[in-house]
Amino acid sequence: CTVWKQNQSHRVAARLDLSGIYPPIATPFTAKEDVDYQKLEENLQSYVRIPFKGLVVQGSNGEYPYLTDEERVDVVRAVRRSLPADKLLMAGSGCESTRATVQLSEKMAAAGADAVLVVTPCFYRGRMDGRALIRHFTKVADSSPVPVVLYSVPANTGLELPLDAVVQLSQHPNIVGLKDSGGDITRLGLIVHKTKAQDFQVLAGSAGFLMAAYCVGAVGGVCALANVLGRELCELQTLCVSGRWEEARVLQQRLIEPNAAVTRKLGVPALKQAMEWFGLHGGACRSPLQPVTEAEVQQLRRDFSSNGWL
Amino acid sequence: CTVWKQNQSHRVAARLDLSGIYPPIATPFTAKEDVDYQKLEENLQSYVRIPFKGLVVQGSNGEYPYLTDEERVDVVRAVRRSLPADKLLMAGSGCESTRATVQLSEKMAAAGADAVLVVTPCFYRGRMDGRALIRHFTKVADSSPVPVVLYSVPANTGLELPLDAVVQLSQHPNIVGLKDSGGDITRLGLIVHKTKAQDFQVLAGSAGFLMAAYCVGAVGGVCALANVLGRELCELQTLCVSGRWEEARVLQQRLIEPNAAVTRKLGVPALKQAMEWFGLHGGACRSPLQPVTEAEVQQLRRDFSSNGWL
Amino acid sequence: CTVWKQNQSHRVAARLDLSGIYPPIATPFTAKEDVDYQKLEENLQSYVRIPFKGLVVQGSNGEYPYLTDEERVDVVRAVRRSLPADKLLMAGSGCESTRATVQLSEKMAAAGADAVLVVTPCFYRGRMDGRALIRHFTKVADSSPVPVVLYSVPANTGLELPLDAVVQLSQHPNIVGLKDSGGDITRLGLIVHKTKAQDFQVLAGSAGFLMAAYCVGAVGGVCALANVLGRELCELQTLCVSGRWEEARVLQQRLIEPNAAVTRKLGVPALKQAMEWFGLHGGACRSPLQPVTEAEVQQLRRDFSSNGWL
Amino acid sequence: CTVWKQNQSHRVAARLDLSGIYPPIATPFTAKEDVDYQKLEENLQSYVRIPFKGLVVQGSNGEYPYLTDEERVDVVRAVRRSLPADKLLMAGSGCESTRATVQLSEKMAAAGADAVLVVTPCFYRGRMDGRALIRHFTKVADSSPVPVVLYSVPANTGLELPLDAVVQLSQHPNIVGLKDSGGDITRLGLIVHKTKAQDFQVLAGSAGFLMAAYCVGAVGGVCALANVLGRELCELQTLCVSGRWEEARVLQQRLIEPNAAVTRKLGVPALKQAMEWFGLHGGACRSPLQPVTEAEVQQLRRDFSSNGWL
Repeated sequence: CTVWKQNQSHRVAARLDLSGIYPPIATPFTAKEDVDYQKLEENLQSYVRIPFKGLVVQGSNGEYPYLTDEERVDVVRAVRRSLPADKLLMAGSGCESTRATVQLSEKMAAAGADAVLVVTPCFYRGRMDGRALIRHFTKVADSSPVPVVLYSVPANTGLELPLDAVVQLSQHPNIVGLKDSGGDITRLGLIVHKTKAQDFQVLAGSAGFLMAAYCVGAVGGVCALANVLGRELCELQTLCVSGRWEEARVLQQRLIEPNAAVTRKLGVPALKQAMEWFGLHGGACRSPLQPVTEAEVQQLRRDFSSNGWL
Repeated sequence: CTVWKQNQSHRVAARLDLSGIYPPIATPFTAKEDVDYQKLEENLQSYVRIPFKGLVVQGSNGEYPYLTDEERVDVVRAVRRSLPADKLLMAGSGCESTRATVQLSEKMAAAGADAVLVVTPCFYRGRMDGRALIRHFTKVADSSPVPVVLYSVPANTGLELPLDAVVQLSQHPNIVGLKDSGGDITRLGLIVHKTKAQDFQVLAGSAGFLMAAYCVGAVGGVCALANVLGRELCELQTLCVSGRWEEARVLQQRLIEPNAAVTRKLGVPALKQAMEWFGLHGGACRSPLQPVTEAEVQQLRRDFSSNGWL
Repeated sequence: CTVWKQNQSHRVAARLDLSGIYPPIATPFTAKEDVDYQKLEENLQSYVRIPFKGLVVQGSNGEYPYLTDEERVDVVRAVRRSLPADKLLMAGSGCESTRATVQLSEKMAAAGADAVLVVTPCFYRGRMDGRALIRHFTKVADSSPVPVVLYSVPANTGLELPLDAVVQLSQHPNIVGLKDSGGDITRLGLIVHKTKAQDFQVLAGSAGFLMAAYCVGAVGGVCALANVLGRELCELQTLCVSGRWEEARVLQQRLIEPNAAVTRKLGVPALKQAMEWFGLHGGACRSPLQPVTEAEVQQLRRDFSSNGWL
Repeated sequence: CTVWKQNQSHRVAARLDLSGIYPPIATPFTAKEDVDYQKLEENLQSYVRIPFKGLVVQGSNGEYPYLTDEERVDVVRAVRRSLPADKLLMAGSGCESTRATVQLSEKMAAAGADAVLVVTPCFYRGRMDGRALIRHFTKVADSSPVPVVLYSVPANTGLELPLDAVVQLSQHPNIVGLKDSGGDITRLGLIVHKTKAQDFQVLAGSAGFLMAAYCVGAVGGVCALANVLGRELCELQTLCVSGRWEEARVLQQRLIEPNAAVTRKLGVPALKQAMEWFGLHGGACRSPLQPVTEAEVQQLRRDFSSNGWL
């Protein structure tokens, strides 16, 4: 990665600080399933009043696999226009092939992303061993104009970025961290331990284990639930960072069920439904994702109300 | 699907006959990972001398997730130019979103596909239940200018198209069959049983259970191994169809290990390596797929030679 | 296994012929959950009129993990007393430890078993690799007074006896076959292929893939469904063995759903419920197995009636 | 559970305090695979000098599935004789059937156990839903002379005790806690949250997530690693309980790899090997568990030495 080292050496000096809370924002659609930029803009107006570190655009909750490459970039560009300069914009640029990921990472940087979030390719998961994944991420990081954050989300990809690969990749000067959505707290603690020489930054990929992640050394979280309870997650962060663990525990416990509801239990359609309840625009999903059923809406409401959020 | 019924009524009269063997062809790449149309053409010249029913283009073995939409269509167009008119061209047109799949199916038909093979979307697999998948495939089939073949490949997608969804979809006039790569012979038999009123055609998705699939009522196979042992698989078909089961068994047994080697054990890179041994062009894979290691090459060779194929 | 070779050499001369159909019989319990020997005896009177090759006693359907070692032996002894001498009695003698399995196999032989069916130990499944399992089965086979049949049932054990271990174990003079309940027809075909030099006998472990198993070279089946549709399964065997595959297919297809209902869908409690409908004694299960719910009974009935069996 | 309420009412007044660290002790065997009571006694002499809350006897690390019921009770009796009265003895009494578990729990109490640890029955895991498991544990708790601790260990049983079942069972007066070895920290936090009205006590089932478990509200740990690094785990407990999280994190991180080595990576044989290095008697496992291979010994040693423990 000689080229990278020359071009980017200024960056190494001032490593991008990822610490804090990020909502992986949802993509609102119109009734015809087109991106609804107006509603997206209105959501951003709400988010800007919350002390987020930044936003993740085109994460799993943004339905990125359903957008064209052009749409993915356009949404990032639109978000960048509205987002204050001091808020970090992390853009999902992962594709199945290395070459497509390289190209999309460049476009995301040009569209204003401060960092790219690169998910593990997974279709040929039987062949996506450490060797293949290290090559993939290295090539992407070598050419990316902005820092790379690794992204492991086994619930969607059926694949976990192997710990040894994370450790090796953490030494790359343009790879600054990992978003881990698997929820294996032992693994998170070990990653923090084995990458401490690299000042590698670990982000919890879900609000369900945010406090525990802080406890073992994570520096922040990218949490679907932050789309609806963003202020509360920022408060949880403050409690953890300032060592007020007893208060943190009480708050964390009330967030587990609503978080599970909008993630592994009912997914993106539930997140979008809940957003409507909290004054944001969720709206429909793009097909084949279907809206939550009436029974699921009841369950979702219970998971929020029984914890005092509705 | 009223529109469909008007436009396509001629087709219902003469249901597309899928019976027979298809190689899901590999996509050769140059050293720079571009599609190598010259080598593709040469492979087609070899295949045309084998009594295949047709070819599958952009199946999993064609590395379709690594191609752009344009490349996917271009490869189909190139194959159609070389393929005799009496050979069926089945083109993979599955994407994650319904709208992209609809559009790509239309392009594939325009490029000369006789049918489209549509894989289950899978990224949000927790939400891809029967309801969502039935809507997805129905919408695609409603608008597709050519018949649709369903495609269930759990090893890659982590998702099996539910049996009840298959049964309901089999009633759609523009859905003519299923390629099932899961290898659950009980399920295959039950699908044949529950769709018999619809003249729905089941294709085995792998050579490992081809004879058993014929035995329970399948009409053909889309088999990676047909890229290298195509003549032998056509012979196995003949033996099964003519009821010469004893001979079929002997041949089938010798095909299981080489088939496993080029599919679930070592995957597409091994298939491409084996193609080189049999006078075809396999070549490199597009990254992040890595070539087989030296140890894997040895194992691959053993799986062919110990069964008398090398 | 020197000792074995001396003691058992007479047996090698006349290898035990396993070919045919076996019900893995259920264990009836009284209302107080004691073994109901009276009802067991009455069931045996029904079974004796069906052309079974024999019976499996203390297979998974016999709730053997819920019986004490004494009960396991007593039930075998009771069955042997009622069973005509020309019917083969295969007794489940598998335990978690090798020493317990060795002892129980001896007791089963003394109680009248013609062969023992030995399931893979599985509690420490992470350590139950080929090496450990080969040692286990070898030790058991070395000392067993009667031939050993291997038993792989991943749905219950979470473990599949590795193919290489099967092949190596097939060479042991006192191991005569395998009951495979996994349903992977490719694996079954390969096992037949790789053990053909040993005259190793493969039995399908479920009625759902019985015809396909015969097709690839199995010699019989141990089928839960034989407890209720025993005559029909014996007829399916006859059709397969005599090459009447078209008729076999029609019959096989009607058996898949009732078979799934009494095995993986609803399990032993459903099997016992269905037995009541067909004039046999099923009765309650031993706790913690609970009886089927009312909704499950409806589903079970539909799976039989929609295929013309009720 | 009327009977229970009368007999045990004294206990409700003074709920058994489980808080602290427990080694789930290994069972040493002689070369002939008999229980080696002499070496067991010597191990206990070492453990008594460590500030453990007590010992778990016949947990998974005690190879209980390989012992006869008599041996299981004898080992508990032997441990009780050596153990100071102020150390808690928790005895594994779980069996597959409810009746066997009831009987063994009574024997364990008679042999001196202060509490019984009852694992989820799992052989018919497809039928072991909340309903069945609640009945099982309720019946056991109703009749057990000593308090019951639930035990969920999916790596061995392939089954997780459902959260709703845990919550309901936590209301039983004779069920005082849960040992959870699954490592899902979100689940642990939610269990603490949903059982807080019952003063239900959660114990981490592994040292890998001990600090995180304390962080979310657990009160102790049953940790295989405590057999070799018991003093260090007790120190980790002290750091967590006294809120010295920074120091706790440093110590926790160094324990993850050795813990993984003696649990999910290499299991009981590795634990026994490591015990030898730390002046304890591990010795052989009972067959079919095999000793670690030479390569595994190297790996095991690295996992301890690279973290400064050897």
